[in-house]
Amino acid sequence: VVDRAVTRIVTPGTLTEDELLDTEDNNFVAALASEGEEHGLALLDVSTGDFYATAVDADAALRDEISRFDPEEAILGPDASGDPFPANCMVTPHDERTFEFDAAAERVAAYFGDPDSLLASDVEVRACGALLAYAEYTRGGRYTELHPDAAAESDADAEDEGDDADAGASSGDGAADDSAVGSLDYINTLTRYDPREYMVLDRVAIRSLELFERRSVHDQAGDALIDVLDETSCAMGSRELKDWLRRPLIDREEIEARHDAVEELVGSLQRRETASDLLRDVYDVERLIARVARGRANARDLRSLKDTLDVVPELRAELSGVECDRLVDLRERLDEMADVRELIGSAIQADPPIEVTEGGVIREGYSDELDDLRETERSGKQWIDELEAEERERTGVDSLKVGHNSVHGYYIEVTNPNLDAVPEDYQRRQTLKNSERFYTPELKEREDEIISAEQRADDLEYELFREVRSSVADEAERVQALAGTLAELDALVSLATVAAQHDYSRPQLGGDGIDVETGRHPVVERTEERFVPNDADLGPAEDFAVITGPNMSGKSTYMRQVALIVVLAQLGSFVPAERAELRLVDRVFTRVGASDDIASGKSTFMVEMTELAEILDAATERSLVLLDEVGRGTSTADGLAIAQAVTEYVHDEVGATTLFATHHHDLTEIADDLDRVANLHFAARRDGDDVTFDHELSRGPATASYGVEVAKMAGVPDAVVERARTLLDEDADASAAPSDADAA
Amino acid sequence: VVDRAVTRIVTPGTLTEDELLDTEDNNFVAALASEGEEHGLALLDVSTGDFYATAVDADAALRDEISRFDPEEAILGPDASGDPFPANCMVTPHDERTFEFDAAAERVAAYFGDPDSLLASDVEVRACGALLAYAEYTRGGRYTELHPDAAAESDADAEDEGDDADAGASSGDGAADDSAVGSLDYINTLTRYDPREYMVLDRVAIRSLELFERRSVHDQAGDALIDVLDETSCAMGSRELKDWLRRPLIDREEIEARHDAVEELVGSLQRRETASDLLRDVYDVERLIARVARGRANARDLRSLKDTLDVVPELRAELSGVECDRLVDLRERLDEMADVRELIGSAIQADPPIEVTEGGVIREGYSDELDDLRETERSGKQWIDELEAEERERTGVDSLKVGHNSVHGYYIEVTNPNLDAVPEDYQRRQTLKNSERFYTPELKEREDEIISAEQRADDLEYELFREVRSSVADEAERVQALAGTLAELDALVSLATVAAQHDYSRPQLGGDGIDVETGRHPVVERTEERFVPNDADLGPAEDFAVITGPNMSGKSTYMRQVALIVVLAQLGSFVPAERAELRLVDRVFTRVGASDDIASGKSTFMVEMTELAEILDAATERSLVLLDEVGRGTSTADGLAIAQAVTEYVHDEVGATTLFATHHHDLTEIADDLDRVANLHFAARRDGDDVTFDHELSRGPATASYGVEVAKMAGVPDAVVERARTLLDEDADASAAPSDADAA
Repeated sequence: VVDRAVTRIVTPGTLTEDELLDTEDNNFVAALASEGEEHGLALLDVSTGDFYATAVDADAALRDEISRFDPEEAILGPDASGDPFPANCMVTPHDERTFEFDAAAERVAAYFGDPDSLLASDVEVRACGALLAYAEYTRGGRYTELHPDAAAESDADAEDEGDDADAGASSGDGAADDSAVGSLDYINTLTRYDPREYMVLDRVAIRSLELFERRSVHDQAGDALIDVLDETSCAMGSRELKDWLRRPLIDREEIEARHDAVEELVGSLQRRETASDLLRDVYDVERLIARVARGRANARDLRSLKDTLDVVPELRAELSGVECDRLVDLRERLDEMADVRELIGSAIQADPPIEVTEGGVIREGYSDELDDLRETERSGKQWIDELEAEERERTGVDSLKVGHNSVHGYYIEVTNPNLDAVPEDYQRRQTLKNSERFYTPELKEREDEIISAEQRADDLEYELFREVRSSVADEAERVQALAGTLAELDALVSLATVAAQHDYSRPQLGGDGIDVETGRHPVVERTEERFVPNDADLGPAEDFAVITGPNMSGKSTYMRQVALIVVLAQLGSFVPAERAELRLVDRVFTRVGASDDIASGKSTFMVEMTELAEILDAATERSLVLLDEVGRGTSTADGLAIAQAVTEYVHDEVGATTLFATHHHDLTEIADDLDRVANLHFAARRDGDDVTFDHELSRGPATASYGVEVAKMAGVPDAVVERARTLLDEDADASAAPSDADAA
Repeated sequence: VVDRAVTRIVTPGTLTEDELLDTEDNNFVAALASEGEEHGLALLDVSTGDFYATAVDADAALRDEISRFDPEEAILGPDASGDPFPANCMVTPHDERTFEFDAAAERVAAYFGDPDSLLASDVEVRACGALLAYAEYTRGGRYTELHPDAAAESDADAEDEGDDADAGASSGDGAADDSAVGSLDYINTLTRYDPREYMVLDRVAIRSLELFERRSVHDQAGDALIDVLDETSCAMGSRELKDWLRRPLIDREEIEARHDAVEELVGSLQRRETASDLLRDVYDVERLIARVARGRANARDLRSLKDTLDVVPELRAELSGVECDRLVDLRERLDEMADVRELIGSAIQADPPIEVTEGGVIREGYSDELDDLRETERSGKQWIDELEAEERERTGVDSLKVGHNSVHGYYIEVTNPNLDAVPEDYQRRQTLKNSERFYTPELKEREDEIISAEQRADDLEYELFREVRSSVADEAERVQALAGTLAELDALVSLATVAAQHDYSRPQLGGDGIDVETGRHPVVERTEERFVPNDADLGPAEDFAVITGPNMSGKSTYMRQVALIVVLAQLGSFVPAERAELRLVDRVFTRVGASDDIASGKSTFMVEMTELAEILDAATERSLVLLDEVGRGTSTADGLAIAQAVTEYVHDEVGATTLFATHHHDLTEIADDLDRVANLHFAARRDGDDVTFDHELSRGPATASYGVEVAKMAGVPDAVVERARTLLDEDADASAAPSDADAA
């Protein structure tokens, strides 16, 4: 009989099968509770148990926090809007009662203890409680009504000796244990964070700096920052590193603790490489233990956990001589969990099948009762193996055969010419064209015995497996702590590997500006054959740079390079430069390019202005602002007027450290009037038809833009290029007047 | 014992589980074979069996064809490059020998018959053969070595009476039949098409016209053309309509056959609505039959097929009075397949479980042998049910209980105080704290009998289910034909529904230009409260329009509107206009916006020029070209010179019908010199601080651009806006000289 209770509901945010997930990314489901402008946001990766909560008091800040985590799915409280969630995030309808404060608080308490000591506001409590309820719902098809403990009790019952209730083995592969319905054991820790503890990177900045994904043109693939930064050995380390990149730090002490660890690992090639190799043998135990706790792990998962635990003592040994606080602390936190290792090693077969209900899972010697049943099965089959010879002798029919098929079971087959020799006790089972098949009462009895023993042994193995899995689940918290330690170690080793291989240097923090010597763009330097490094010197005396130069000379790359060096430094990495002295930045803003948004009626220019308005509103003197071609999508005169007004406003009112790239060469004149504005430019040389860019940054404004030469390089027909040149020359001749500096 | 042969390999392009696929989209895997500039491209949707092949002789055309289908995954022949595939397409390494001509030709022949009569070139044969091999590989873990027929033979064996081989039931839910390894029965038809039979829509055009996806800013969701066009009732119809949109037609007769059908359906509200309602009850039998043929369908799938077949007679009846050729033909092709319906109805339970190996699948009365086994099981259980009363009477112990648990089986439980009353034939099974559990030899025998009968009945049901599934699989071709008919009908009904609900009109084909009266943008008109329609009149006398006007006045929307009306007409739809007389267009080109491509070293401007060069190279006088702001990413003088040279070139050399939106107001002067160029503009009015756009197109050039007003609307701080206005006024005063027309 098939049990048809819903055991699990699959939604984009609650997928947990490794095959369906990109293991190196988190897969978050979000819950949002709002009261006016106050928003509580909770995020859970059900595949790992990572649980975050925060509160923000403005819509813009809410969008920023959502874009850090990029959730796949969201549920909304009664007053919350789905607008802040990106289009690729599915908003799922969910029982709004789970967002009520009392219910939510009780549920939070059941998982984590007193909500008041963990969370800062009611909206956070409401979001967390509702998210826990939703996670229970998707896992069990229902959520327990306010008393998650009830499930734990029924779990205990099931393991009691009086387990009379369930008739027949539980069905199917990977079906959750009944015991798993109710509270989710793998969710043990809640990370409540304050957005103000981290550098703010909004969605626009994350995208335009290409931290996680390359903004592509023509959909061609390419590397993002994470691709060149991620030399981690295991999936947990890769996710940890992404979390660091998503939330760079602003606390100097914490950043320098990471820098110390990276520095020590950079100094020890052998330790770094050995640790990296060992970490390669580590399974994704963070997700694995979540499956164990949910009763969805199979026997292979348990063996993988053991294989991972086998690595831990070696890792500890490798870290025996470390000196800096962070690495010492990591070493001390590496728990090899000998008890769990021993249990799995003694109970579970070395190379078990995926299916856990059909035997082959439990080692011989682990259970006497199981060994007895298997012995019954074996001896029964041996008896049948010997039957053919015995019956041939008894009947004198040499062609007599004993066989088996799945539908009719065991039989004795006698060909038609020999049917006279069939003894009295043979009973007919099946008639074929050339033969008859029989059974004897004794064969039938043996057969029933074998099937019954086999069936019972399979059931017992499943029962024993569930016991072992449940014992391991009891240690979920320790496994999760170990997973976190391994992830952090892996991320630090990765940062050190990148720093050593690509000649990064340790940034000095606490300066009063952004002072970089021979900085490089960490992604572009890997793809270009010859990359030209450039300095940056944006101190209190000159914190606003207007950058001019022809297309493709390197303006955009340079601006991003400066921002990426700041981001790398604050996430704990070394930086691609010979020397960097950096002030701590609270937020990076970018206004770089845009695509049209036609159906909503917003033009390119409107989008550009909207982003600009957000920057002017939110930037502080501790921010870094990149402006690329502000004022492009409108007429020349309007664009220039806006660019100049913005420059003055940022300089006089905001005081943020700013890089402003522009084709409005008229704007370079503003440096004379504003004392902290400097002109920088990238130059180019024309050799006959060709243009050469040297990608070197110099002081002063640029002199020419070479647009027609770029058109020629792009493959625009010669006739068009020649005609454009003629028109340009005529124009230059006609207007000897200096009113249009661009034509110079 | 668990069978561990690989039964299936899951890759992005070969997923077939409905839950994991968006059912309304195809999911293509591509194979590419190249010889120099000649490319053979094959595409397969493994979930439906849709199989396409084509050949192109230029890299650009290859990209265009790939972007039509947007495959999830690709395999490459030895000389083929992965470059033309978009970043979201996974290129999978695959055995290159499968691309060898002889092997490929043999495999194509085994599926479809003589390759020479089906395919036009060797590269197509090689791509098709390799793709078939890959589909076999992902389904079976291996591909049959050149002789797919071998698999069919072993299939026949398995259903033979002498099926002695397989001991024990086949494992697990949804595992493929062994018989399914080898050739793929559901791939029956190969659609070889010539790209020249369809309007070309390259990736840039598909994206910028927002046919399938909205180009979003800030990731906000919104409608694409397909969202407003798709009123289909079933997933098959939705996929069909997308295919039409992906490949609009250029053959007038074929287009008008669709227009005729749409017109007739528009005229009959009741027929349209009834057909639409009936089609809502249709399952996705195209994918379903593919699962049946691959031996991956479960009993519910078969019932769903029957439910769909139940609808067909009603649909035929509803179409009884239709008149136009296309609808008559569709009605005649609706095959209700009474034989298949009858078989499934008699064999399969009405609401079967998902699991097919654990019973509950086959109806009572379908197999005597099965009914006997179930009777044995039932009577055995009844005997045990009666045992408790009997044993209580025999022993005199009123508290005696008969029970069952999954590990120890049936038992008789006696509490400790009553152990003296236990008869001689009781044998001890288990000791609990307060009681002992026993069995009797008779109970043991009955128990073995029940387990054995139950096990055998389950196996027999699975066997019978496989027979039924296999019989249905033999009719795969008929089901696929029916699926295609239902899909086409659904798409036509959907077009008629949209046309009727949104007041579209039938376009007249065969004119000598694009002549539209009160045309609307099909997407924008749905989201704006008040949409202002505009005419278009681009005939032989004036086929080049220069369009000016402020930001947000409607230039981009208008240009796309004209292109969308052309695309709609040629895919067979009515169009959002009061009247449209259209020439047939061979290709739509767009050069609209762009994002930066930093890491590859291409600037925005370079991308813009590259796209422009492609248009100037490929456009013909039968093309429609949209140019938005060409020459924006460089200095004003360079940009204007390029824009003018391009305009002259398109006008003099290419002769394509062209719409060119620009902020270079100087460009409007060119209309005086070129006889087929017209100036059009969108105007705006300033009322104090506000700007009002009336979105109405007029002849002549625009006079102002209102960039600063847009900045204000976008939320740029007042201080910045006021300062920009002051700067503009000063500029206007200073240069009373007419050199900068923008400032006017």
